[in-house]
Amino acid sequence: MGAMTEDEVVDFDEEAHSANLEEFEREHLRYKFEKQELLLEALIHPSFRHPRMPQLSYERLEHVGDSVLNLLVTRELYSLYRDCSPGSLTRLRAANVDNEKLARVAAKHGFHRYMLGLTPVLHQQIRDFQEAILEYPVHSSGLVDTPKFLADIVESVVGAIYVDSNSLETVWKVIRPLLEPIISPETLKVHPMTELLEWSQKKKLKLKFVTDSLEDKTRVSIFLDETLVGTATCGRRRDVVKNKAATAALHYFKATMV
Amino acid sequence: MGAMTEDEVVDFDEEAHSANLEEFEREHLRYKFEKQELLLEALIHPSFRHPRMPQLSYERLEHVGDSVLNLLVTRELYSLYRDCSPGSLTRLRAANVDNEKLARVAAKHGFHRYMLGLTPVLHQQIRDFQEAILEYPVHSSGLVDTPKFLADIVESVVGAIYVDSNSLETVWKVIRPLLEPIISPETLKVHPMTELLEWSQKKKLKLKFVTDSLEDKTRVSIFLDETLVGTATCGRRRDVVKNKAATAALHYFKATMV
Repeated sequence: MGAMTEDEVVDFDEEAHSANLEEFEREHLRYKFEKQELLLEALIHPSFRHPRMPQLSYERLEHVGDSVLNLLVTRELYSLYRDCSPGSLTRLRAANVDNEKLARVAAKHGFHRYMLGLTPVLHQQIRDFQEAILEYPVHSSGLVDTPKFLADIVESVVGAIYVDSNSLETVWKVIRPLLEPIISPETLKVHPMTELLEWSQKKKLKLKFVTDSLEDKTRVSIFLDETLVGTATCGRRRDVVKNKAATAALHYFKATMV
Repeated sequence: MGAMTEDEVVDFDEEAHSANLEEFEREHLRYKFEKQELLLEALIHPSFRHPRMPQLSYERLEHVGDSVLNLLVTRELYSLYRDCSPGSLTRLRAANVDNEKLARVAAKHGFHRYMLGLTPVLHQQIRDFQEAILEYPVHSSGLVDTPKFLADIVESVVGAIYVDSNSLETVWKVIRPLLEPIISPETLKVHPMTELLEWSQKKKLKLKFVTDSLEDKTRVSIFLDETLVGTATCGRRRDVVKNKAATAALHYFKATMV
């Protein structure tokens, strides 16, 4: 994931890339930027060094897009589900804007093909992700290792369109079709961690969670009194480890207590 | 925090309350609602039973307002601090919209005085909070026990104004002055938990966090190898316990390792 070498910077063909971005606007976004440099910025990986603007990366626009997307999805769910409890609305919104959901959007519509700065390691992460989600057609509820930058660039593109248009309605028109299928109360699955916490509250079990940082992995262990009821060890993503440990604990309880 | 008795429901004087809300609009918000029932809804505690609308509480509007506020503050910080790193922008936004910051807004401008459904226990929580923040003029960075409903009603009022006006600009005009003082890079303090994690990464320490649920309290203990380096036990709020344990661990490390 290291920075580009000087050669790679010099090799960057601005004109060709600008034509690529026009293709992306036309074929995927169906939105024409007033300021194409915003779209360019939205698709620059932090490891890439732009010859004229070395500080540029998608991160600032991602920060804006995160909030824009949150509000757009909130508005939509608020008016679609008038009888939904506030708790369900929150879970529904979370599932529709979480990293896995957004990374699915990027992977499906090939956002990464227009990025600058993707290394072989990142390309491999995309392929692994694309393979892993085949098991879960809508959402894995936290069991798949999601390359965060794929989610980030959906947010940064949303941020770029918002800064370019200054109009929530414009952004929604562009992004709404890309978010399909929007997760509904019917297709929403509960995260294993949430299910475990609800289960333990209902049964009045006092669970103990222990997180160890090992060499380059994280281990989460869940204890009931002194009995280990679930554990998982994973690489990069702490939340995936937690969800896998919770899944294991749920299996344990369902096998021994129901 | 129990539900109101039937007597209390019958006692509720809609006309007088409507006059109260007009005072709130005039004196604090300087915004006149098209649909005053939205403001009414935004200020109903979940434990209150409205005689005609027993399901009403601030929670749905809070959910909307949370997103609206997030975007407004994001936009503002994005344009104010053009040279700020994305990480600093995220921390700055978090501090400006977190529960403690918003509860301060509510307490300062007396939002709770216009609420329906406040019990003596909740009133006591407000007084405790008002006293606790005297120690920290701008923000305690997670060391004060914040009554969440105070933050919630700022969000629900924001949500109500947004639904009523359908205009981000209108909401911003109302809420911007109430958010003063906006936390800037200069006044932003780092949360103890963040500082501890950064410290342990820099020094390559492998910390173990153990969370126990006791009777009606939570205990967080932090270990370095088998040595307990920090611990805290608190009542309601898990994040306050964590921050207090982290503060203790930081004291330990700074006393023994620098």
